[in-house]
Amino acid sequence: MHLTQLSNNHVFAGWHQQHEHESNVLNCTMKFAIYLPPKALKGDKVPVLYWLSGLTCTEENFMQKAGAFKVAAELGIAIVAPDTSPRGAGVPDDSDQAYDLGLGAGFYLNATQPPWDTHYKMYDYVVNELPEIIENNFPVNQQKVISGHSMGGHGAISIALKNPDKYLSVSAFSPICNPINCPWGQKAFTAYLGDQQDHWLEYDSTELLKQSKKQIPMLISQGDADNFLNEQLKPDALIEIAKQKDYLLDYHLEPGYDHSYFFISTFIEQHLRFHAQYLQK
Amino acid sequence: MHLTQLSNNHVFAGWHQQHEHESNVLNCTMKFAIYLPPKALKGDKVPVLYWLSGLTCTEENFMQKAGAFKVAAELGIAIVAPDTSPRGAGVPDDSDQAYDLGLGAGFYLNATQPPWDTHYKMYDYVVNELPEIIENNFPVNQQKVISGHSMGGHGAISIALKNPDKYLSVSAFSPICNPINCPWGQKAFTAYLGDQQDHWLEYDSTELLKQSKKQIPMLISQGDADNFLNEQLKPDALIEIAKQKDYLLDYHLEPGYDHSYFFISTFIEQHLRFHAQYLQK
Repeated sequence: MHLTQLSNNHVFAGWHQQHEHESNVLNCTMKFAIYLPPKALKGDKVPVLYWLSGLTCTEENFMQKAGAFKVAAELGIAIVAPDTSPRGAGVPDDSDQAYDLGLGAGFYLNATQPPWDTHYKMYDYVVNELPEIIENNFPVNQQKVISGHSMGGHGAISIALKNPDKYLSVSAFSPICNPINCPWGQKAFTAYLGDQQDHWLEYDSTELLKQSKKQIPMLISQGDADNFLNEQLKPDALIEIAKQKDYLLDYHLEPGYDHSYFFISTFIEQHLRFHAQYLQK
Repeated sequence: MHLTQLSNNHVFAGWHQQHEHESNVLNCTMKFAIYLPPKALKGDKVPVLYWLSGLTCTEENFMQKAGAFKVAAELGIAIVAPDTSPRGAGVPDDSDQAYDLGLGAGFYLNATQPPWDTHYKMYDYVVNELPEIIENNFPVNQQKVISGHSMGGHGAISIALKNPDKYLSVSAFSPICNPINCPWGQKAFTAYLGDQQDHWLEYDSTELLKQSKKQIPMLISQGDADNFLNEQLKPDALIEIAKQKDYLLDYHLEPGYDHSYFFISTFIEQHLRFHAQYLQK
């Protein structure tokens, strides 16, 4: 797997880099961003937090706006941020170019329906192909944690629940918790997975939590001034299942905060320190 | 002066807001952004750091990318970020739409040459009109410090040197230190101020430092991997004058850092703590 380095910026004594590569899974050229903390530059292999962004984002948003590097440097955690969908000539987009389907809206699943099924395999990309690339090309160990925002919060939680042996902990900001019951999820799942709703269940965090056998520590932060809270994000069903199962879900409803990166930047330190508890030094 | 609020985001227990207003000085509609720390929401009047951004920026870049709010909240400092030039229909731009003249490139001076002289009065806007608006509309006191990046570093230092009684301290990241001797400055000063180079001296930080009578504490951070360092920024002359005059200039050359917001985000805490030393609680 050949990587082309696109950028390299010194930040908090580590390095932020963007790389490009051909993805066999997604059948297109993909970009990702990585933050390597100072510890990784001294010959130590460091754990990785995979960050999954929300609708319309690329590999850039979190790295530029979250303000995560100071604490990641202190804790010795690398951060990897993939793009949010396949990209490029030949990759289909929504016919209306809506922001919530197609480009920038991969929903971290494997599409089964044409025209999406030739490229839209973000689940396989995030769970398998990308970590292999990262582990083969950077000074990281195999300890992985995962986090994300909104559509990426859905991605982080559903991926962690499906792979409790791969990720040591999971967190999310303002996640879409029950996509089969909200407009964003229903639109995307219908397009990518088809009309049969029983096929949707394997990517719905609330449904996955019902079925889960192994606990994975989970932190969710949600702003109570988030415009999408009641219609799209719907954390209540997830919280209810977690209570019933005595699941390790730490849910924080933060007064006055909205859906933006201003919210993420305020609490990203708390999330990084949460994950660090589950990593071996 | 009527302000129209455009946005309001809770962040680090304070508020980030964008506002729009008619500027009498600039003869157009202007936007600015403000961060109000939690202390300002409790009835206390807080000091203000004015942040001047670089070429191509708007009132948004620093607020989204610098990661300044955690420490500003702790220190109880408001931050105000104006746009970098007049904007809107009727405001002239460079005929080539170059990034370094016209829109996004006001250079924090008062233009004297047509077509620029009807709108490009960023010096008067930053020094007089904007602080009056801020002090009349927000819970701030009259303690002011000033900082900026690149073209905005030039703005911060030249404005502070011309107004040592208005600002308690000044800092800059990667400032254009000697605009009369670099391509960016020569192009802009020729257009805005005309061919007579003796008119340029009043906006050149190195020349202003030669003439300065009153000391103002000054911190400059500069990355040594900055692509613009040798051709455009030229700190050496400024540093030399400061040495000769025993001026309070603390100059930090930071190995490996470039001209980006990744650099600013790494050292903004140091700058905020520097300014806080000169503010009364």
